[in-house]
Amino acid sequence: MQYDRTRSLSSTRRRFIEALAALSGFLTGCKRQPAAEEEGPRRLGRPVRAYGERSPFEKITRALPTTKILEVGNSYTPLAEICGTITPSALHYERHHSGVPTIDPAEHRLLIHGMVDRPLIFTMEDLHRLPATSRICFLECAGNSHLGYGPRDAPTVQLSHGLASCSEWTGVRLSLLLDEVGVQQGAKWILAEGADAARMQRSIPIEKAMDDILVAYGQNGEALRPEQGYPLRLIIPGWEGNANVKWLRRLKVVDQPYMTRDETAKYTDSMPDGTARQFTFVMEAKSVITFPSGGQKLPEPGFFEITGLAWSGRGRIERVDISMDGGGTWQEAALSEPRLPVAFTRFRLPWRWDGREVTVQSRATDETGYVQPSHEELVAVRGPHYEYHNNGIRPWKIKTDGSVTDASA
Amino acid sequence: MQYDRTRSLSSTRRRFIEALAALSGFLTGCKRQPAAEEEGPRRLGRPVRAYGERSPFEKITRALPTTKILEVGNSYTPLAEICGTITPSALHYERHHSGVPTIDPAEHRLLIHGMVDRPLIFTMEDLHRLPATSRICFLECAGNSHLGYGPRDAPTVQLSHGLASCSEWTGVRLSLLLDEVGVQQGAKWILAEGADAARMQRSIPIEKAMDDILVAYGQNGEALRPEQGYPLRLIIPGWEGNANVKWLRRLKVVDQPYMTRDETAKYTDSMPDGTARQFTFVMEAKSVITFPSGGQKLPEPGFFEITGLAWSGRGRIERVDISMDGGGTWQEAALSEPRLPVAFTRFRLPWRWDGREVTVQSRATDETGYVQPSHEELVAVRGPHYEYHNNGIRPWKIKTDGSVTDASA
Repeated sequence: MQYDRTRSLSSTRRRFIEALAALSGFLTGCKRQPAAEEEGPRRLGRPVRAYGERSPFEKITRALPTTKILEVGNSYTPLAEICGTITPSALHYERHHSGVPTIDPAEHRLLIHGMVDRPLIFTMEDLHRLPATSRICFLECAGNSHLGYGPRDAPTVQLSHGLASCSEWTGVRLSLLLDEVGVQQGAKWILAEGADAARMQRSIPIEKAMDDILVAYGQNGEALRPEQGYPLRLIIPGWEGNANVKWLRRLKVVDQPYMTRDETAKYTDSMPDGTARQFTFVMEAKSVITFPSGGQKLPEPGFFEITGLAWSGRGRIERVDISMDGGGTWQEAALSEPRLPVAFTRFRLPWRWDGREVTVQSRATDETGYVQPSHEELVAVRGPHYEYHNNGIRPWKIKTDGSVTDASA
Repeated sequence: MQYDRTRSLSSTRRRFIEALAALSGFLTGCKRQPAAEEEGPRRLGRPVRAYGERSPFEKITRALPTTKILEVGNSYTPLAEICGTITPSALHYERHHSGVPTIDPAEHRLLIHGMVDRPLIFTMEDLHRLPATSRICFLECAGNSHLGYGPRDAPTVQLSHGLASCSEWTGVRLSLLLDEVGVQQGAKWILAEGADAARMQRSIPIEKAMDDILVAYGQNGEALRPEQGYPLRLIIPGWEGNANVKWLRRLKVVDQPYMTRDETAKYTDSMPDGTARQFTFVMEAKSVITFPSGGQKLPEPGFFEITGLAWSGRGRIERVDISMDGGGTWQEAALSEPRLPVAFTRFRLPWRWDGREVTVQSRATDETGYVQPSHEELVAVRGPHYEYHNNGIRPWKIKTDGSVTDASA
């Protein structure tokens, strides 16, 4: 052999290879009979085409809401069925309050006004001509893993965590646009408004606007998808999805928050003392195991790779630990590179299932040192009426027949 | 103002802001009249849907070949119209020799045999169960920017450079599969074979197979697209597209290259002395300006951002320089982060066009120190009959009316 197997082995790879001793039981199950070198039909295939589509054999979809009003609801990314860290645009979760408007980009305008020296109206052509920035980051609905939902409402990871997705977004830095209009002394907030029928509005502190917010027109290399705000939306890295206003038509520079419906009646957090916490923008570190997860079934004891996704609104994921004994002991999972700040990070741990009932769960730590709490720790602090920002650990139970359910089921 | 504008200014950002002095002429052209805060229709939009589609206003497509046999040809990624670094799967370039086969993944098998201790057949289910790896990397056809094509054949960057795309690929490391079958003493190459009607075959050195090749089933978060090899293909980071065998059905471990059609009659390089260079797998560092590029038209003098893509089969892009005087002087462009090895890297340079005729071109340098050559330097070394692996600099000429053409036109 011309190659030296030990030369390029990183410690992570070593761990996999050591763990692969566990593989033997699985792979001996593969058929060993070599196929004939020549077989099967030799028919000319389909020609090239201008715009591709997935294979007709691929059927995975976003889960649709069970409500009858499909214009006001969510659809959920199938986290257990996607791979890697980029969410296909066709499967990015949806959340809208009055349906997806159909907007002609040639007619669309962005107005920036209020406490500014030079109010301006931008066409899409204007925005495309300005310096652009691309960034891979996750979006998560504040209501993802809603604490009001029990295991019966969200038996799968798609339903419990699927209001989170990750894309490469492209657009213009909001700070650049604000520099151009000239923000006046005393300005402290920005009101962002969408062009949907609900005219979704959120107030955003100007410090964040001057930091890393994008006025985005691109998603995964092409224009935003309609349900993601085509032709223009805010991308606020790490902040709750609702504030990332879609179908963006207006930014008003103001001196205080506007107290809109979606920051008063909704998207505030009820605390144990009866008060409501407001403007809890950041999505804290969170992780979930996507395989094995609720609704799946392990075919037999043997080798499996535990995998899942972790993310934090405060930066990079530093580590993910996995427990297979209900939180008693933890093992560190391997993290896929590159670990980008405020982006999905995939974790993996090789594992041999012995056929006994077991509870698996993951726990993320981000670069600030913040550790994802348990569900119980979260409820102890926030009380039973807390709905949004549930980043608690989600355990899954694997039963002796291989079926996977919520651990409390 | 509560924020300190100077606090977070990186040197790259400073450069943009300095350059934005040039913006004033452009932005005063924007309409200044504020729109009414309330206007337009308030109709309920479209409901959620299970699998998304792009806006009906979006029309960009892959360019199709002009030949009549669309089963044997290329389609080209619209590099001037996409943004960021991830190519939408629907717009990834195509190259196939006998059309796109329709394969039922439940019926698909991968055989690994030859000089191995334990020949094995893997189902797709087997492969999905093994430890997975994801990696963002580019693919480029060896015939991209074909030297035999003049400016008349490839007047746009889509036609001159569009046989290159970049995706996040997910699959199993080939080294893991080879460990399982047990490679025998004396094995030096691997023959890879596709399930298309052409039974595309390529020989690959075992050193690379044990290094970073993926047996991939995922692309940008979902299953491979049919034209990218659904359900299984090789991903050989940095190596010419043809060797990344699609619709992968067989890997035979052997002691020498198989001298298949696609490594003898095709995909070899004719040298000036009449010999042919064989097994030139690596795609060397390359870059191209996508805006402004052939076929586009600048509407007027003023501010523009020059942008484009750079990539190298040998690792990271270290820098990209841009010349606006036919190669006499060069300015360093800003590179988007993260700069991933063997992946598209976007570069940007703010620029004010004064309305005079100008020739723009980009030059990439990778982390090995290799500098992208000029077309003339390439032809001087390789001779006039060289066809593949053209990574020469591509200049564009901007005429006084704003129209952009190949510099030699």
